Amino acid sequence: MSSSFGQLFRISTFGESHGGGVGVVVDGCPPRLPITVEEIQRDLDRRKPGQSKLTTPRGEADEAEILSGVFEGQTLGTPIGILVRNKDARPSAYEDFKDVYRPSHADYTYEAKYGIRNWQGGGRASARETIGRVAAGAIARKLLQQETGLEVLAYVSRVNDIRAEIDTDNVTLEQVEANIARCPDAKTAEAMIERIDSARKDGDSLGGVVECVCRNVPPGLGEPVFDKLEADLAHATMSLPASKGFEIGSGFAGTELTGIEHNDPFTIKDGRVRTTSNRSGGVQGGISNGESIIFRVAFKPTATIRKPQDTVDSSGTARVLEAKGRHDPCVLPRAVPMVEAMACLVLADHYLRQRAQTGK
Amino acid sequence: MSSSFGQLFRISTFGESHGGGVGVVVDGCPPRLPITVEEIQRDLDRRKPGQSKLTTPRGEADEAEILSGVFEGQTLGTPIGILVRNKDARPSAYEDFKDVYRPSHADYTYEAKYGIRNWQGGGRASARETIGRVAAGAIARKLLQQETGLEVLAYVSRVNDIRAEIDTDNVTLEQVEANIARCPDAKTAEAMIERIDSARKDGDSLGGVVECVCRNVPPGLGEPVFDKLEADLAHATMSLPASKGFEIGSGFAGTELTGIEHNDPFTIKDGRVRTTSNRSGGVQGGISNGESIIFRVAFKPTATIRKPQDTVDSSGTARVLEAKGRHDPCVLPRAVPMVEAMACLVLADHYLRQRAQTGK
Amino acid sequence: MSSSFGQLFRISTFGESHGGGVGVVVDGCPPRLPITVEEIQRDLDRRKPGQSKLTTPRGEADEAEILSGVFEGQTLGTPIGILVRNKDARPSAYEDFKDVYRPSHADYTYEAKYGIRNWQGGGRASARETIGRVAAGAIARKLLQQETGLEVLAYVSRVNDIRAEIDTDNVTLEQVEANIARCPDAKTAEAMIERIDSARKDGDSLGGVVECVCRNVPPGLGEPVFDKLEADLAHATMSLPASKGFEIGSGFAGTELTGIEHNDPFTIKDGRVRTTSNRSGGVQGGISNGESIIFRVAFKPTATIRKPQDTVDSSGTARVLEAKGRHDPCVLPRAVPMVEAMACLVLADHYLRQRAQTGK
Amino acid sequence: MSSSFGQLFRISTFGESHGGGVGVVVDGCPPRLPITVEEIQRDLDRRKPGQSKLTTPRGEADEAEILSGVFEGQTLGTPIGILVRNKDARPSAYEDFKDVYRPSHADYTYEAKYGIRNWQGGGRASARETIGRVAAGAIARKLLQQETGLEVLAYVSRVNDIRAEIDTDNVTLEQVEANIARCPDAKTAEAMIERIDSARKDGDSLGGVVECVCRNVPPGLGEPVFDKLEADLAHATMSLPASKGFEIGSGFAGTELTGIEHNDPFTIKDGRVRTTSNRSGGVQGGISNGESIIFRVAFKPTATIRKPQDTVDSSGTARVLEAKGRHDPCVLPRAVPMVEAMACLVLADHYLRQRAQTGK
Repeated sequence: MSSSFGQLFRISTFGESHGGGVGVVVDGCPPRLPITVEEIQRDLDRRKPGQSKLTTPRGEADEAEILSGVFEGQTLGTPIGILVRNKDARPSAYEDFKDVYRPSHADYTYEAKYGIRNWQGGGRASARETIGRVAAGAIARKLLQQETGLEVLAYVSRVNDIRAEIDTDNVTLEQVEANIARCPDAKTAEAMIERIDSARKDGDSLGGVVECVCRNVPPGLGEPVFDKLEADLAHATMSLPASKGFEIGSGFAGTELTGIEHNDPFTIKDGRVRTTSNRSGGVQGGISNGESIIFRVAFKPTATIRKPQDTVDSSGTARVLEAKGRHDPCVLPRAVPMVEAMACLVLADHYLRQRAQTGK
Repeated sequence: MSSSFGQLFRISTFGESHGGGVGVVVDGCPPRLPITVEEIQRDLDRRKPGQSKLTTPRGEADEAEILSGVFEGQTLGTPIGILVRNKDARPSAYEDFKDVYRPSHADYTYEAKYGIRNWQGGGRASARETIGRVAAGAIARKLLQQETGLEVLAYVSRVNDIRAEIDTDNVTLEQVEANIARCPDAKTAEAMIERIDSARKDGDSLGGVVECVCRNVPPGLGEPVFDKLEADLAHATMSLPASKGFEIGSGFAGTELTGIEHNDPFTIKDGRVRTTSNRSGGVQGGISNGESIIFRVAFKPTATIRKPQDTVDSSGTARVLEAKGRHDPCVLPRAVPMVEAMACLVLADHYLRQRAQTGK
Repeated sequence: MSSSFGQLFRISTFGESHGGGVGVVVDGCPPRLPITVEEIQRDLDRRKPGQSKLTTPRGEADEAEILSGVFEGQTLGTPIGILVRNKDARPSAYEDFKDVYRPSHADYTYEAKYGIRNWQGGGRASARETIGRVAAGAIARKLLQQETGLEVLAYVSRVNDIRAEIDTDNVTLEQVEANIARCPDAKTAEAMIERIDSARKDGDSLGGVVECVCRNVPPGLGEPVFDKLEADLAHATMSLPASKGFEIGSGFAGTELTGIEHNDPFTIKDGRVRTTSNRSGGVQGGISNGESIIFRVAFKPTATIRKPQDTVDSSGTARVLEAKGRHDPCVLPRAVPMVEAMACLVLADHYLRQRAQTGK
Repeated sequence: MSSSFGQLFRISTFGESHGGGVGVVVDGCPPRLPITVEEIQRDLDRRKPGQSKLTTPRGEADEAEILSGVFEGQTLGTPIGILVRNKDARPSAYEDFKDVYRPSHADYTYEAKYGIRNWQGGGRASARETIGRVAAGAIARKLLQQETGLEVLAYVSRVNDIRAEIDTDNVTLEQVEANIARCPDAKTAEAMIERIDSARKDGDSLGGVVECVCRNVPPGLGEPVFDKLEADLAHATMSLPASKGFEIGSGFAGTELTGIEHNDPFTIKDGRVRTTSNRSGGVQGGISNGESIIFRVAFKPTATIRKPQDTVDSSGTARVLEAKGRHDPCVLPRAVPMVEAMACLVLADHYLRQRAQTGK
């Protein structure tokens, strides 16, 4: 179904950008996992708009309420319902353009599909929908930490053509959170911030790449054929708003190597089977091999800009759209917790699937 | 489940590269669709090894038998079972290396996951598993043609660093099939063939990119949130053996544009809402907008090469692997029908989902 | 997943009897269906405790809030989130017995399964969980009415050994709602009310049977094999708290007929294929034949009684449980809207599935 | 999907009664389970027609071939494909009546749903479809035995109005298989056999009840809400051809008890929590409590009889059907392995689901 994800650690999100609220139901989280609303709020705060000068000034609190499934600080094994109320509803801001199809937004396609849409914002296509994912991802992250020590960390690795150099073995959350670009390469981060700020002033927007590294991954996660780990990670991250590409390990660049250059030789290190290189990106035949999983997600420049654009309205009349007010010049820093959440959801799901198969 | 794909046009594949056979069960295909075994065989023949000097010399017939679900040339609405017998079983070719983990194959990860594997070949990780997908894809393709006129066409757009120029609006199946590289740019195809043949002689292998264009797509296919069309296409194609990356429309390159450069302006053409550019790749907000869907899949150089490689065996002993005999220097030409099949499966599924939503 | 139901009209419920609230997410409801919160509330009010002297005196308001998916009185095609807050939380009522396993409740089995439970009431096993189902069922009912004219009506047909006589062709909602027993046979209803009231005074409880009739069912709903209509109806209703049996058409009694007595002859009436009897209960080979679907659900006497009972606590000590306060002597009248809701959910799901198959 | 069942131990069946063959794909069976084709054949032989004078004389061999997923006597963890060829195809037997809707068969409803059907027999509605289920059930049974010691045993408990007395604690497979009625009460079995044989001679048919007992069930299997164990068992068995009712524990009869008579008191026996009665039928709140699971399935008299019956054909003309030749006067003895298979499939699925939740 369109709003559910996962087989065993399964989430269903709901809510439009305008209306009562947005949220998620997490079905399948094992019982007796310690979890607090603060742990969930931490990731939501990294996702919310208005957290720095780089993002939209919309100052939403995005405060999570746990409706069910947690009792005296522990999960019950029953569905965890989480609700975040919508606060900053200002339909008037959209009223002037309610019949206009904003270029590269989902206005036209929703209309074509459903014959109706909530024009008071982006509806389900709004990045606000990711609140439910990020909340659920925080629970998945806790489960993985607790049960396996697995750690998921994402960061901005490129903004437009500004590339960061990142040591995937040693990069830390502190380094990522040290600047508002969420780029752990501090020097490059400065250039990124400057470029984003400049786009903001121009009313323009920027895209780029978020990279994600998963460390301490137990070998054996993922499945042959359709639910290969990379297939599920691609599905998960390509479902994020504005994503246009996914690659794992050597990715697109690796296709320019030959087999002898690309294959990862096996060796024994500390009594464990390891590879001496990691062009596979931690996954072979769809299944984790115990090396770090490394993948990248391409995000296009955000579609909302403050420049005049040619478009049409629902009556088929040519119009010029001149968006006013809010404008988020670069979604990348806020996309970081979204990418982490999706990775955690995929890995938690496969962790439980592997547990079903092997009993451990 | 690991071996099922799709919600309404749902397939389940089975079979290892060695054993009784491989096949597929297609559940959910509408009734009264005319389909013949020849239509299925056509795509299987494009997939099979040994069809040209570029691929492994394994001369498999890969002959399909329809076991159920088709009666007097039409689908019954009940599950379509298709079986392809394994013929060329030569376990002895693998016996010498049955304990050795072949680099960048799935030997080690299957062992880590299951504690057992069929060492007589690649098991489920073998490209042979894709027979079931390609057979099912032929049925999905027929359904799409019949009901919507939708057309899916893939081709090799890059081998290593050799790039083809392709006109996505006008490229034809005849052009694709005109050479053994399956590259519709005839001149570039020659260079590709030469390079692949040279890699074959070296015992080395090459990767590259398959591009796929879907034309005459009705607007409204795909769903918000988790089952966005690009998310399902990414899932589908990243589940193919050797795939390392996916991108749609402007993809990774598009992230170096700004918003004003990247957005696709709307216009009215022939009374229909159209865009004047197609950086979106035919999908906006996860839903088709009626423009051509264009996506690319990166395939790594195939892992099987005929050069000595360092590895270990299951006892933890260092070994040098020197593969003999068969060797497929470049999977790309055979990957073309696989990519098409996955696209057809995704689109047929979303076509039925949309029909459930709107009744037409 | 344990808290989701349906394939295309899919619901996920959440919430314990104590905690923030209970609710449901409905995913897959087609767009542009007119629906109001009042239509949902109508069925919730028939479900709620305290509506008559026959039920628990717990006076819960059970007021529904639509959180998402409905805009200006119409469904958007996106998930419909509905929340009902818990108001009457009185954990102290349960505190004395928090370690005691109440006989024929789920206390022990939840503990055995999860190693934790919310002892402040019945948790997910509480009938309060059905709020989400009934709310979702009201939407499914509206969809069926609107699209097909299909009508679903349930009623109490037996309390303990008191049997009603009901004309399934002509029984009306007004007749059902005319008395607090929800038995459309007015005379028998009086006897039922008397018997239930007497059980209430005794601190004892009663079981019985709810019958459900679905009229104006289009032929062709339901699927061969695992998702036969009767299989899904059995699944749906056997998932209601306290249900112990299900039968369709001639049911258990019909097994004492021979084939010649049992088969339903076909005939032509008003140009349509009809049967002259309906021992099949409107379903043949798992698929509706256009006759009324008639099924029955057996509900055991409710487990909560006010008589002393032998049991044990979680330390393994023998205890005598003497429940105080609340007590619902017969769940049947409140089970009527629950059974209707489950039937509507199954039929709406199969209606959409059939629409996917045939496009109409 | 209509032809798949189960979440983690998931089966997809295919095949019509006439055509290439019938079979099943089992996806999700854990690796390294020892299984032989003989273990599968054993249950198939109990299911096949022609095994005694009580059943249709169709002497089908129903020989199973394992196509995949088993290697050197053990499961690989990958899909297990099983195929049984159709041998006894005699379309001519059906040709005369290919346009006639046989009363209480699925001919008319398939036609109404699909607009096409394989008239050379019962198609997917044929009992032949259950071959795939029984084969898969044999694997599920082995998994349960191996991992938990759980034992599933069914038998005929009633034919028409002839009731057997069975001690559910001590009944054995040997007693069940001791006579062709599969009724472990030897004396009653004789009466049943006589009655069935007499119906056979009359060209009439009989229904009845199959009871199933599951012993050594670990507490904690099953889930709250929609996937309660009884709901899944009801779904599973109500999907068998000719089933009209399901009940668990006290069932329909138990609704005539009051709460104090019906509740099962808890006690401690051998250090374990037990109940002193078992009106719950081994399941409380949808979850196993460690007592034996006992349920019953009602089967109508088989629809195929050799007496003249009024019906219509597809042109709407009144016809009299006089079936010739084959005729199975009572499906009950052959339904026994089908019921066992469905119970094994449900329990194996919930066993894996519980393992995912708790890791053991």
